[in-house]
This record gives sequence, structure tokens and C-alpha cells, in this order.
Amino acid sequence: MSNPMNVSQKLIKSHLLSGEMEPGKEIGLKIDHVLQQDATGTLIMLELEAIGLGEVKAEVGVQYVDHNLLQTDFKNADDHLFLQSAAKKFGYWYSRPGNGISHAVHMSRFGVPGKSLVGSDSHSCAGGGLGMLAIGTGGLDVALAAAGKPYYVKMPKIMGVKLTGEMPDWVSAKDVILEMLRRYDVKGGRGFIIEYYGEGVKNLSTWDRHVIANMGTELGATTTVFPSDEITKQFLKLEGREEDWVALEADEGASYDAHDEINLSELVPLIAMPSSPGKVVEVREVEGKEVSQVVIGSSANPGPRDFWVVGEIVKDQVIPADVSFDINPSSRQVIQNLASEGSLAHLVQAGARFHQSGCMGCIGMGQAPATGQISLRTMPRNFPGRSGTIDDQVYLCSPETAAAAALTGKITDPRDLENTHNIKYPKYTEPDKIKINTQMLIKPEKNGADMKLNKGPNIKSIPDFDELGNAIEMPVILKMPDNISTDEILKAGTEVLPLRSNIPEISKYAFHVVDGNFYERAQASMDSHGGHIVIAGENYAQGSSREHAALAPRYLGQKAVIAKSYARIGWQNLINFGIIPFEFSDQSDYDKIDKKDLIKIENLRDSIKEMKDVVAINTTKNVEIKLKYNISERQRDLLLYGGVINFLRKEMA
Amino acid sequence: MSNPMNVSQKLIKSHLLSGEMEPGKEIGLKIDHVLQQDATGTLIMLELEAIGLGEVKAEVGVQYVDHNLLQTDFKNADDHLFLQSAAKKFGYWYSRPGNGISHAVHMSRFGVPGKSLVGSDSHSCAGGGLGMLAIGTGGLDVALAAAGKPYYVKMPKIMGVKLTGEMPDWVSAKDVILEMLRRYDVKGGRGFIIEYYGEGVKNLSTWDRHVIANMGTELGATTTVFPSDEITKQFLKLEGREEDWVALEADEGASYDAHDEINLSELVPLIAMPSSPGKVVEVREVEGKEVSQVVIGSSANPGPRDFWVVGEIVKDQVIPADVSFDINPSSRQVIQNLASEGSLAHLVQAGARFHQSGCMGCIGMGQAPATGQISLRTMPRNFPGRSGTIDDQVYLCSPETAAAAALTGKITDPRDLENTHNIKYPKYTEPDKIKINTQMLIKPEKNGADMKLNKGPNIKSIPDFDELGNAIEMPVILKMPDNISTDEILKAGTEVLPLRSNIPEISKYAFHVVDGNFYERAQASMDSHGGHIVIAGENYAQGSSREHAALAPRYLGQKAVIAKSYARIGWQNLINFGIIPFEFSDQSDYDKIDKKDLIKIENLRDSIKEMKDVVAINTTKNVEIKLKYNISERQRDLLLYGGVINFLRKEMA
Repeated sequence: MSNPMNVSQKLIKSHLLSGEMEPGKEIGLKIDHVLQQDATGTLIMLELEAIGLGEVKAEVGVQYVDHNLLQTDFKNADDHLFLQSAAKKFGYWYSRPGNGISHAVHMSRFGVPGKSLVGSDSHSCAGGGLGMLAIGTGGLDVALAAAGKPYYVKMPKIMGVKLTGEMPDWVSAKDVILEMLRRYDVKGGRGFIIEYYGEGVKNLSTWDRHVIANMGTELGATTTVFPSDEITKQFLKLEGREEDWVALEADEGASYDAHDEINLSELVPLIAMPSSPGKVVEVREVEGKEVSQVVIGSSANPGPRDFWVVGEIVKDQVIPADVSFDINPSSRQVIQNLASEGSLAHLVQAGARFHQSGCMGCIGMGQAPATGQISLRTMPRNFPGRSGTIDDQVYLCSPETAAAAALTGKITDPRDLENTHNIKYPKYTEPDKIKINTQMLIKPEKNGADMKLNKGPNIKSIPDFDELGNAIEMPVILKMPDNISTDEILKAGTEVLPLRSNIPEISKYAFHVVDGNFYERAQASMDSHGGHIVIAGENYAQGSSREHAALAPRYLGQKAVIAKSYARIGWQNLINFGIIPFEFSDQSDYDKIDKKDLIKIENLRDSIKEMKDVVAINTTKNVEIKLKYNISERQRDLLLYGGVINFLRKEMA
Repeated sequence: MSNPMNVSQKLIKSHLLSGEMEPGKEIGLKIDHVLQQDATGTLIMLELEAIGLGEVKAEVGVQYVDHNLLQTDFKNADDHLFLQSAAKKFGYWYSRPGNGISHAVHMSRFGVPGKSLVGSDSHSCAGGGLGMLAIGTGGLDVALAAAGKPYYVKMPKIMGVKLTGEMPDWVSAKDVILEMLRRYDVKGGRGFIIEYYGEGVKNLSTWDRHVIANMGTELGATTTVFPSDEITKQFLKLEGREEDWVALEADEGASYDAHDEINLSELVPLIAMPSSPGKVVEVREVEGKEVSQVVIGSSANPGPRDFWVVGEIVKDQVIPADVSFDINPSSRQVIQNLASEGSLAHLVQAGARFHQSGCMGCIGMGQAPATGQISLRTMPRNFPGRSGTIDDQVYLCSPETAAAAALTGKITDPRDLENTHNIKYPKYTEPDKIKINTQMLIKPEKNGADMKLNKGPNIKSIPDFDELGNAIEMPVILKMPDNISTDEILKAGTEVLPLRSNIPEISKYAFHVVDGNFYERAQASMDSHGGHIVIAGENYAQGSSREHAALAPRYLGQKAVIAKSYARIGWQNLINFGIIPFEFSDQSDYDKIDKKDLIKIENLRDSIKEMKDVVAINTTKNVEIKLKYNISERQRDLLLYGGVINFLRKEMA
């Protein structure tokens, strides 16, 4: 008999195409599903056009439109038409604007336990709630998976988190993942798949598991995995897809590379303070602060229960005059079910602003809070400025905690509502039947290869990039601290998101959040030295999977980042676009480089070719700095070619 | 016995404070209600602060928030907080963001037959549907009315439009006003109040009358008036305000200055083509064109019936994959009633994108169509670029015609649905009872005078302006054709609307739609000649009432406009902000001035003081041009002071 395996190992083994399942070693995985959202999808479709894809090779490809929904000018609407034409051409499903958030719709309509998925959205790991191996990654990796290529990732370690007990009243799944964030912060999960197991799992619905899996990315984890059990089966049955169910549980005696345990019954309402999902405290510790906005929705709390419970709490109450109470339904299916249960009426009666289905305020697509005001959100992220407001004060919490604040106008422990508002905890009962809505899911076309892509004036071809040269001498034009997120490298929001299929335009916003003059200085360095280098601390490029955070700097001449460490997806994106992700061999060397220093590297191409460490000379300070990079031979080749696009163009030619 | 009077004359007589009711002569009216929306309201509140208002002097003052709802950064949300604090300070009602469109909410909650209203929104005339004398005007006029000053307007002529018969199936109120626009175009109503009377009026619900009165502004009319009858009474009863009803009908034998007649039974579905509400044709004439977007809502079709009928038409159908079907509920009350009737479920099931309540796409606040695509809207306006998309193709039509296009994906005469889709015309029955929702209407505070105004960083004081000088020599920096709208002078949309309380910033967008370099040239002219002049054709500054279309050019040094003629509100705004609205004494002189010509006017102040005509010299072409201006003595004084703000500052000091 073979070694007992945990769920993660089973999922990987069943999709392993190359490499060995040894933590830290690169493995190649067969990908069954590809998931794209619109903000990243336009570029993927342009990449597929460049590669010359006929029809998507994955079993299921779905192009969702859930990010750029505001249409403040022609650009968003043009992108929608482009994506729809590309979906036809390449044989994708197309989930129309307004149909809902990718992760929620995908779990309901397409998710299958035991299958693998890559998605061009960092919250694609939500699929782990259904027993999938679902990984968020850069768009180019998704394009490659769509083209039938393996997905390469370093074999992660597996952290087993044993769940016991049952959540008390007023505590819900969001508090479980906030507890994990309290323990591990935004980088404690790096290099790990987090696998939940144990008797407590049975007390979590599939949507609860989605909440926990979705925000696994905030821990920095490669993905999150839950078993597929009777609860999973019941979920698929409700969605009319019982036949898609397969059982998937850890073998008896399976082991993990790391261990932790959460007794659900001991959890209390938690909240992440501004401006990191990792700054978690008990709600009790910050209660009483005045709240100006409460927002319900997003992929972090997308299930019908998460809206229903808020509706029950605010039922027959009136939201205070000073609170904006915003509801973002996660899908049209959710709207229909809310309407039939009366929840929609409760919410609107109490004073809610009911928005169209989609990500909305979660990615700064409207709903920016007022200056200096606190916003409480059931969303997954509160990186600085992500809401659209500079110096924003965004807190992340459960629907229960959000509803309590909506009632009182202050941060409030929801458990207090029993006394202050005489509200008994509304306990959700899973329904026997739900409304299923597939009207806005357009089936893939067969033989779409001759379809013309519908490109509006804002949709531009991907620029050409150079191969890696052998010597550089370039200035450091930015030095950043730890935990710089991709939201800081290239922000989202209504101004910038519509430019994602126009690299020359979007590049003007590169690093704009951290340095308003970055664009001008990058251009100057391009003219004077042919490019630039940036310095960063730990966990560089954490957060959203947007590959534009690599592509735009590359377009502006970025040749290398030198950081203490990297977040996984951001690191992969740098390599994919031909930016070398150097690490300091000696972390204290971080202090030996300042902004404006000139860095000289000789024999660069030769060293990378031979996978040797590199010595950089800070010619300004006249010191040597040893640099390392931990990449596979495949990735080495990508860097030499100047990125995946160059590599594939050569391969296809 | 006195002369028999029509409804308009009764309304004016009962509010007359000064002047005689002789068409063309200025009259001063007592104002009972003031209505403000947020995009114009921020400036009004700053003006009230400057004037030093204690408490609003009108019987009812309501500050609505229905325009700037997207909150793409802090500015909209800051404005909301500012308006809420100002409403408290000055004793206004405050209708919170998401509560609904001002005109719809005002009619439901506040409208009283026989009362007068001025509103800082050009569609304020919608109140005429309820038998009010409701006039849209610039914000400064509204500020003055709020401060208890009379509202000055030239006594309009009264056009009596006799309605007979009953609308056939598939024809609704929107087709009545489109028929008027087909007959009179966008300036045929100038100088008139349009008063509907006759037996056909009894076949129009109060919401139908709202539709017709609302879009009276598109005819250029001062306002529109309907009688107050049993149908009005029933409306108020449904809204729980039967006691507010008073009868108001024309006296037997009342006469009108102009006459027209519409037999409702002869109407057919009509549509306004791009890009003017006056380009009306039968739907039949343009049928078959492919449609990319259908938008339901706005103050032009705000009643529950207008959503219900769409819901009934699309019920159990599926919107084609290529059509975006957008619903903008006009108020939370409408959402609740739609939900309870099942209409909301029909709409969402069919594939609708359901947005928050408010004006939304009607003022370019999202929902911009894709490049080159046709958008059908139940809205009141389709001026070029107003949708947010350059060279847009926006058609205006009834809910029936819009729903037909949503089903077929093409412009379709809705009467065809009986054959092609086997849909019987859904005939609306007025309900016996409706849900009333006042949760988001905040009552006025008493003694709010000490309240501090909550000003975010984007809210700036009004700049100072010079008094009128006695000689100018300035270049013409822009020459425009007929029918330039305030949307072209200063566009709306997400980029610009949030800047309405920041004059220096918003001025950068002045005339941007017609000339991308206007701002730079205005600044250059300010430096070289102390200001500039612009030339226009007929009906200058038509459309929206935004006073920024005068204030921003004034800030950039605009001293005079020379036009063939003016739209009423735009003309008033120019005077209020100290820009002289000259007319050509001889219209053919329009051809004697070109862009870049230098115009010299001597003895300007003296001439205006003595109300004498002015002779300008085009020093570039060496020709004389005679100019006239038809203003009251009161307005003369305003021009001499450099505008109302200067005038009032002096008066208060």
C-alpha cells in the first residue's frame, strides 16, 4: 500500500505532468479549468491572439466580466465586446456583465471537486472550497494553460489546519479566515497549500468554505483546499449538478508539513484594521469608532447566506442617517434568491443602496468612502488606497459585524445586538431548492476560429520587448519597504482599470501610489541608461495577481527588482515578463542601496544562462552586493528570451 | 367678473410679487419649494454660506443626491457629507444617496398642486405634472429663492395644447412628448409655458403627466403645466397625502397665446435619433438597426408603470447575448414596489443589470455605450457625448419601444411584438395601495445655524470676480454653431461631475467637448488681453441648467458671449455670473466674426448702465457689429457688479 496522502497531495498527484512532489521544486500541472476576469482577461485574449490559439485546450474556459462594470466612457463597454468576441473565437464560456463575480458563479455553475483550475485573479483559490486545486496566477500563465501548456509552480508545502467544534452565534466563516490572518499575517502562508480537515469542516457549508478558501490568498498561500464530502454533494445537488460530485478526503494517517488547529467554538468576531488584511484584532478592541460606510458583498462573502443574515439583522430597522449602506450582490442568481426570500426587501427598506452584481467597491470600482471616514466591508482586501480614497480607513469583517455597524453607526460587536436591539441571532437553514439562473452565461461556440476580434480604439497590441542583455548600468529609481502590494505597483479603480488593454497608457500609473513622479523618472532613465532598477523589502508584489504590475514597469524599462523576498504570483509575473527578480544574498545589503544609486552588473546574461549568482556593483557607493535568484531552468530560458511572449513567439514561428 | 384664466396664469398670479403678466416683461415670483440635486447643490450651499443664510426661507427645501453616485474617489462621498451638513445647517430636507431621482421623489413626497418651485435641475419642470408651477433654473437663482428672494423670469407666453382621445396600445406618455418635439424641436417652446388641457388629460396618469412635463424642458419651454384633477387627487391619496390636494383647472373660456392639439389615439411609437431630442421620427422609420444597449429609467420615465411594463414585456424571455439591458430604478420606493409586484424578478431573470437608484447613465454617470454602438434609452437627452462615449449613438424612446429592442436586439416597433412574440399589450392598472418608503429622507433640523459645514479637500470657496469695466479689447477664442448645449460647454460624466464644488479644477474642462485646447487658449487670452469672448449661433446654452457652464468660463476670463439667441436658463446663468449675453442686432453679422478676431468695445460699462445698445469693432476685420441685450434693470445691476455674488456680498456687507 502506498503512503497515505492528504487532499492536496491527491489533487497534485492526479494532475502532475512533470517534476517531483518535493516542496520547493518546480512541478508542471495539467489544468482542467481556466477562469478569467475582464480586468486581466483582455490582455490574456490578446496574448492568445499573439500565440495563435485555435480553441481553448482546457476542459472548461470561462471569461467573466465582473470588474470593469461602471462604463464611465467607451473603454469598459468596448472591452466587454472584445472579450465576448474573443470568447466566441477561442471557445470560452462568456459570463456577461452583471451576471456576477467569477469565483461565486464558477463554484455554482462549473466547479467540480478533484479538478484543477488556474484563474487570472488572485482569489481563484476560492475553488478550493469545493475540493478543487484552484490557483490564482498571472494572466500569461492562464493563457498558457488555455493553450494546453502545463502550469508550473514550486511544489508547495502542505499546512494542515484541523478544525474542531462549531461556530458560536454571531461568528461566521469570515472570522475563521480572519483568525488565520491574525495568526499568520499576510505572508505566513507563502509556499504553502492550506488544507482544512477535521470534524469542524462538517459544520461549514460550501459557501463558508468558499469564504475561507477565497481569502487564503491574503495569507500568501499558493492555494487552500477543503475535502469534498456530503456537504459538497448537497451543494452540487442544489445547483442541479449532483452528477459532478466526487468524494475527496485525506487518507487515514495522512500527514502535513505544518500543523495548526482552530476550535471553531472558541472564535469571536474579528476585524482587520486599516490597511492590511493581516492587522486583525477582536471587534471588541476597536468598538465604538464611528462608521460612515458599510459595504456588503465581494468574493470574500458571496453566498446567499451572507446577504440573508444581513437582511435579517437590519429587518424593520432604519440605517442611521450618517451611514451609507451599500449592497453588492455577488450574482444575478443571488439577487433572484434574495428577492424570493424577502431579504432584498428588508435591505432596501432599511436604507440600502442596492448595486449591480459584481466586484464593485472591492476593486475601487465606485463606492469610495469620504475623506477620513471609516468604511467597514465584508471584502477580502484593504490595501492603502484600494477603495479609491487616499489615506482610506477600510476595515474588513464578517457580514454579522458589518450589519451591526450598519445598525448602530459604530464598530460594534454583533453579539451585543441581542441586548441592545433585542435581535436573536438569525441562524441560516440551507434551502431545499434554489433558483438557478443561467441566462447571462453564453455557451462556447464551436468552430469560432474565423471570428473577428472586436477591438475598440483603446485595445492595443502587446509591445515588443528586448532579449536579456549582458551588461547593465542603471539607476535605482525607487526604494520600497516591506509588503508592497500590486495595488501600489499599479492601482485599480475606475481611472486605471479601463486601461488594462492599453499598455502605453496604463504605464503612466506605474508605482503612482508610492511615488507620483515615477513615470517621468522611468522615462528619463530609459533615455539616459536604457532602463532602471527598483529595490524592495520583504514580500514584494503581494496581493492581486495583476500581471500589469510587471508588464507596465517592463514597458518603462525595468530590468530587475532587487528585494528581500517576493510574493508568489508577483514573482512569477516578473519572470514571465522578463524582469529579473533578484534577492539579496545578504538581507542587510538592503541598506547599502539608496534611491538614485547607479547599479552595474556585468556578464548578466552569461550568469543567468549558467544559473550563477550575480554580483552587482553599487558604483555610487562603491560597494559590491551579492544577488541570488531561485528559478527553474524553464524560467531561466524565459528570462533570456526577455519573457514568455518572446519565447512563445519564437516557438510558434 | 374677472377675465377667465388658464392654469398657468392662475399659478403665476397667485405667486406674483412684482411686474406685470405681460409676455416678455420680467416678473418676480414668490417661491414655495426649492429643489436641489447634488451636482448643482454643492455650489448652491457654498453660495448660501457666502450670503450668510440662517434658515431656508422657502416652505420646503430639499437637497437630493441623485447625480454623483459612483464614488470613484473621495470627492463624491465628501460632497454627500458636505450636502448633508449644509442641509442640517440651513434647514433643508436631505434625500440620501440611493433614495432616488429628485423629480420623482419630490412629486411623491412633497409636490403640492398650486405651489411654486424652482429647482437647480432643468427637469424640475416635471412638477408641472402635479399642477405645480415648477421651473428649472441655475443654482444661484435657487440660492436666492432659498434666501427668500423672488425668482425673476420673463413673463412667458402660454401655449395651450388640447389633448383628446386615448393612447393606443404600445403607445405611452413618452410618445406624447416626442410628438411635441417632432413638431417644435428643441427650441420651439422657448418663451412659453406649455399647458395641457382637454378631455385627453383625463386619460393620463399623474406619472404620465410627469413624463410629459419633465421633457418640456427639451422643447426649451419655461415650464409645463397640467391641471390638478381627480387623478391628481388619487395620486396624492396613494402617496398618503390626500390632504395636500387642491383642484386647479382653467376657467371656462380661458384663452392661450398659442394653440395646438394632439389626438392621443392617433399617436404611434416615436423615437429621437442621435444626437438631439428634437430629431424625432416614427420608430418604423429606423427599425431594424442593431442595438447594443437598452437603458430603462431616468426622470423622463420614472413611474412604477414604466418599469412594470418593461418587466411584463420581457417576462420569461431572454435578452440577446449582444444587448446590455440596464435598469436604473428611479427611487427606493419604486424598487420596493417592483419587488412586491414581481417585476424586479422578471427583469433580472430576463438578463437585466439592476443598478442603484438615481440618474446614473442619464448624466453619463456610468453606462457609457461601446464605440459606434447604438444605445436606446428611456431618458430625456441624447446630446453628443452626454453618455460618456465620444460620437455616441443614443436614441430616446418609450419604455415599450426600449423593451422591444431589448427582446429583439434591434430597433423594433413595439406593436410588432404581438405578432412576432405573441405578447399582448400589458395594460397597467393603477394600484389601490403602494409601499411608501421615507427611510432615506432626513427631516430638516431646527436651529441648525451653528452646524459646521463638513468640507472635504475638493470643496473650495467661490472665487472673487471683477466688476464690469468700461472698455475691452479681447480675442474671440471660439466660434460655435446653433444649439450648443450646456453639456458641450461643460460636460457631465464621472470625470467632471465630481469637480463641481471646485471651480479652478472644473474650469479645465470648459468647452472641452467642442474644443480640446480651449482652456489653454483662455488662459493665454487672460494673460494677453485680460479675458476672451466667444461667438455662438441660435439657442446657445440649451439643455441642462448647470450654472458651471457660466461660472467656469467666467473664471477663465469670459467677458461676453455674442450669439444669435439663447436658451432661457443658460442666458440667466450668464447674467448671474457677470458674462454679458449679447445678441447680434443683425443676425447676418454672425458671419463677420471669426475665431481669433480681436473685438473692441468702448464705453461698455456706461452703455450697459444706460441700457443702450453696444457697438463692437472687429479690429481684425475692421468692421462694426451692432449688439443688443434684452435685460431687466435688475439684471443690468447684476452685470455692473460683475454678477449676483458680488451684488449680494455688497448688499449683505
